[in-house]
Amino acid sequence: MTPDLAALLASIQPADAGALQSARERQAQLTKPAGALGDLEELGVRLAGGFGTPRPHPRGVAVLVAAGDHGVAAAGVSAYPPTVTPAMVANFLADTPAGPGGAAVNAIARTLGAQVYVMDAGVNAELPQHPALTRAAVRRGTRDLRHGPAMTREETEQLILAGAALARRAIAGGADLLVPGEMGIGNTTPAAALTAHLLGLDPAAVTGRGTGVDDETLGRKVAAVRTALARRGSDPADPLGVLADLGGFELAAMLGMMLQGAASRRAVILDGFVEGAAALVGVALAPALRDFLFPAGECAETGHPAQLAHLGLKPLFRLGLRLGEGTGGLLAAPLLLAAAATLREMRTFAEAAVPGGG
Amino acid sequence: MTPDLAALLASIQPADAGALQSARERQAQLTKPAGALGDLEELGVRLAGGFGTPRPHPRGVAVLVAAGDHGVAAAGVSAYPPTVTPAMVANFLADTPAGPGGAAVNAIARTLGAQVYVMDAGVNAELPQHPALTRAAVRRGTRDLRHGPAMTREETEQLILAGAALARRAIAGGADLLVPGEMGIGNTTPAAALTAHLLGLDPAAVTGRGTGVDDETLGRKVAAVRTALARRGSDPADPLGVLADLGGFELAAMLGMMLQGAASRRAVILDGFVEGAAALVGVALAPALRDFLFPAGECAETGHPAQLAHLGLKPLFRLGLRLGEGTGGLLAAPLLLAAAATLREMRTFAEAAVPGGG
Repeated sequence: MTPDLAALLASIQPADAGALQSARERQAQLTKPAGALGDLEELGVRLAGGFGTPRPHPRGVAVLVAAGDHGVAAAGVSAYPPTVTPAMVANFLADTPAGPGGAAVNAIARTLGAQVYVMDAGVNAELPQHPALTRAAVRRGTRDLRHGPAMTREETEQLILAGAALARRAIAGGADLLVPGEMGIGNTTPAAALTAHLLGLDPAAVTGRGTGVDDETLGRKVAAVRTALARRGSDPADPLGVLADLGGFELAAMLGMMLQGAASRRAVILDGFVEGAAALVGVALAPALRDFLFPAGECAETGHPAQLAHLGLKPLFRLGLRLGEGTGGLLAAPLLLAAAATLREMRTFAEAAVPGGG
Repeated sequence: MTPDLAALLASIQPADAGALQSARERQAQLTKPAGALGDLEELGVRLAGGFGTPRPHPRGVAVLVAAGDHGVAAAGVSAYPPTVTPAMVANFLADTPAGPGGAAVNAIARTLGAQVYVMDAGVNAELPQHPALTRAAVRRGTRDLRHGPAMTREETEQLILAGAALARRAIAGGADLLVPGEMGIGNTTPAAALTAHLLGLDPAAVTGRGTGVDDETLGRKVAAVRTALARRGSDPADPLGVLADLGGFELAAMLGMMLQGAASRRAVILDGFVEGAAALVGVALAPALRDFLFPAGECAETGHPAQLAHLGLKPLFRLGLRLGEGTGGLLAAPLLLAAAATLREMRTFAEAAVPGGG
């Protein structure tokens, strides 16, 4: 492991126990019936632990979309051709009448005043120069994981560090809530392979329909994952080795964003299944990362509930989302802001002289 | 019925069929796999129908909190004393370091830049003069619905029209998304009575724990609802009569807000069970109201799913909320804004030259 990555991992410390405790006590004194804000109450407490204060005040929201291509796309595992990856990167950056970007992530980000960062993590195309595009690719797409490791360890670590660097830029730009997002035709296949291998589950149990593939394509996806796992190319006890073996460039970049978010004590919102796969690698590398991870909704992908169960995290909604780009993560951001705001700004029964407290 | 109320009801027209159709066609052409935005896609289409354009652009959000007291509180149906109602109204209006209002609704509204309107719809106390408090009370609390009608028809219509007037003020102030909210110790009891009577359900099936009452108090709530229904004081075929008989001042005011929202072709976000009860009266009076109602989450109150099933509306989340004040409705507002923004601002496959569009 490079010294930079080792230092990043070592810098991740767990949630602040004192802030967690103070936040729980404060939550019980606020002017509402105990528990009446439901899941928002524990959400606020977890934010207190992450930000290290019983009155957390997260402000800016940023979505960081990493794009990459996948050798395994040659196996016919997606409903879309790989040329969609660069076309969607161009869409993220396009000038439109509504503002920069014509994709769902851009439209949703505008409703929140959220910054959108776009990274070429390894797209198999010549991408246009654009000031809003971070170039971090070391290779045009991964190798086909059916036949050998998708990435080398060196490539994997380079992308993790590139993701961390972009997260530092977003944080310097004011982001307290970080939403890693992805674009990469075929990438639910490596995500399924990672999930099956790290959690010891059968590929069929965690391989889903991605962008909406038919039964035949789903069969090819499951077969591709089985072939990759049958190579015995990596040991689940070596999470970086597993990521290199079965992952993808945008997954490595998102892992780096997560690790940096935790190291900088910011909240990281987990969008869906591909992010979940990166998070599984992350908590295996640095268990304290979990304290900074906040799931958005449960996405429509088959293996997502198993990931969230392993992470011990409860999703905030079930809207049937399966788009990626960080869109689900952005949709969850207002719930985190609200959870923090109620904990921070509500008066206590005593302050408000409302009868019925504690 | 007063001419004003009759005119309000007559002015409610259904969703725009052309806009619905155009929005569905547009949804299928946007740069995402078909259906990948899950429930947000139909949400966007419904907003298109309500706002009468395939590219809806709702902007301002306002929460309108109506407060009232309830004669039935004397039956011991709440975990809190009725003095909490005026104390919470004062809390909604208080100066705090974070800004106006120290309650959950204020804190959440600040995260959204949402306006908060507070109405005395019939609180049993002398309330302080405050520029942000709309005074619409015609009586200090309802009569005890166990023994006779909670309100007269005249009082009921007055409060409906007062709610409509406040909604017009919020709309004039820029609100396109209206969130009726409530505060009133004891008010899940009239809401349960209305729901049981209008839907023909057993009181035990729709009476819940409100602010979190124990088994004994819940037994008293169910008994109070049974006693009220046993009076046979109103006919379900006469929704205004049912509201007067079993309802409350803040429920009537919220009904007025909903009717005005629909008449003005704005989206009305339904928070929880008390709002749901008012909405049941509303769709019985003006079936087209439904086209302008957007449920937030499914709240923790027992009878809420039955209300939503009758309204044919699917909740957006299940966070276990049971606070009221419009808090759940505010939490849903960003999802509506996002649904409209994706429909309005995303490029089509053709515009973006992305391969794979229908």
